[in-house]
Amino acid sequence: MVIKMKFYINNGGRKSGIGEHVDIGIITVSDRAYKGEYVDKGGPKVIDFLNEVLHSEWTSHSIIIPDEKVEIEKCLIKLTDEIKCSLIITTGGTGPTKRDVTPDATISICDKELPGFGELMRKISLKYVPTAILSRQTGAIRGNSLIINLPGQPKAIRETIDEIFSAIPYCIDLIGGPYIEAKEEKISIFRPKNAKR
Amino acid sequence: MVIKMKFYINNGGRKSGIGEHVDIGIITVSDRAYKGEYVDKGGPKVIDFLNEVLHSEWTSHSIIIPDEKVEIEKCLIKLTDEIKCSLIITTGGTGPTKRDVTPDATISICDKELPGFGELMRKISLKYVPTAILSRQTGAIRGNSLIINLPGQPKAIRETIDEIFSAIPYCIDLIGGPYIEAKEEKISIFRPKNAKR
Amino acid sequence: MVIKMKFYINNGGRKSGIGEHVDIGIITVSDRAYKGEYVDKGGPKVIDFLNEVLHSEWTSHSIIIPDEKVEIEKCLIKLTDEIKCSLIITTGGTGPTKRDVTPDATISICDKELPGFGELMRKISLKYVPTAILSRQTGAIRGNSLIINLPGQPKAIRETIDEIFSAIPYCIDLIGGPYIEAKEEKISIFRPKNAKR
Repeated sequence: MVIKMKFYINNGGRKSGIGEHVDIGIITVSDRAYKGEYVDKGGPKVIDFLNEVLHSEWTSHSIIIPDEKVEIEKCLIKLTDEIKCSLIITTGGTGPTKRDVTPDATISICDKELPGFGELMRKISLKYVPTAILSRQTGAIRGNSLIINLPGQPKAIRETIDEIFSAIPYCIDLIGGPYIEAKEEKISIFRPKNAKR
Repeated sequence: MVIKMKFYINNGGRKSGIGEHVDIGIITVSDRAYKGEYVDKGGPKVIDFLNEVLHSEWTSHSIIIPDEKVEIEKCLIKLTDEIKCSLIITTGGTGPTKRDVTPDATISICDKELPGFGELMRKISLKYVPTAILSRQTGAIRGNSLIINLPGQPKAIRETIDEIFSAIPYCIDLIGGPYIEAKEEKISIFRPKNAKR
Repeated sequence: MVIKMKFYINNGGRKSGIGEHVDIGIITVSDRAYKGEYVDKGGPKVIDFLNEVLHSEWTSHSIIIPDEKVEIEKCLIKLTDEIKCSLIITTGGTGPTKRDVTPDATISICDKELPGFGELMRKISLKYVPTAILSRQTGAIRGNSLIINLPGQPKAIRETIDEIFSAIPYCIDLIGGPYIEAKEEKISIFRPKNAKR
């Protein structure tokens, strides 16, 4: 299978002058969405969330790809090494089935895994469904990029991203990315005092 | 050491007509139980639990083996690839000592680890003993089989299996196994609406 | 870079006659403390804690080393294989930056990881800061030694070590180390009944 690596680019266009510009990759991993059997709801859900909470100007690089480990790896490498996204959010492919390979692709191309992301996301989802323990989602770093695996369900996406996002801007500071600002009235992000500008 | 891979087979014999038949492997990993130095209580505890909660007909394939990584691996492979067990539950060998190698054997022959099982089991056990953090137990998938490591202590077995079992039938659906039904008055299992028959 | 592996040795000197003597390694991993750009506060914090809670006589083997994976590995091997420390506590180098490699060095030279330590420490720190999920700290075993990664912040060290220490003496029993006793009025350590002397 040859996947055309064509990203849909969108400039959030916010000219607030607060914080620095950030490139964010959003990968929907789904055989069915890729084939057009249903409309992708995961990717747009992530974009809606980011538009709602970010003060920093940002550019989204979105793509829908099938559940193929090699293709996910290629796509992650392109978004990290070429397009220089500081943050990449995947949705889908985190379960236990044969076709669920998003965390495997993520770990295989990353330098460091951050197991706290997966632990916290499972803990959050466990409040809603006991099958949350079946999710293998994780967070990991490649070069100057943070990659986070979110679940595929639009409802589960919002439940988890809301809580983990508090730690993301400071993580991007630490790995050499731009200084991201968020809207305080929408989300509380955390930085130690000496890391605040 | 040559371990005779002789399983004790028992047909639960329940003819309820509800759900599908399932083969379940139950491995007691213990040097002392293998040598006959004490009577295995872990395996029977798991069988009691399954008899109590399952509506589906089921066949147990039980065995007691010593804490030898290669033997545990062989046994897991036989139960998954040959006997086609959809679920395999191990008890024992999850601690930090040199002879505790059950999770290592499990991970080495599996395709995918499901870290949520270990996280939740440790969290449950932590309510009872602070040494719960010493357990390395996990869940993992090989082909169409789900493997779960339970602790060796009969008391700890029941404490953990009760809570994690809610997610097991749906996991087995997802990896291509039979549709397992449980007795609602004994345990609540969870499937998303669209996965229910 | 050639790091002089010179340990600062200190005999706790407590002659209580309760419990057995234990050698404990304390590694401060920090480029800046190594270069003398600031005074190490993490190592002394760990020593203070141990002096406060241990009844057993103990000898500390302290060292400050830079954030270099190979050097951390060498240091851990020296403390485990040569100096025969039963417990080694590292502070620092657990974050997501390029120079943070303490958990990687720990896992690479160990036989077994004990993921429950990292899970619990992150859970504890999450009560204080959302960025706790960025920490990659873990626990692991090499031979007869237990290695624990603590965070670098003195405040975070005390918050986490207090709670996880309850499980440490029994873990050291299990891996063939000395029988460590702690002061009951200061900390409650846990051993199953049949493991108590």
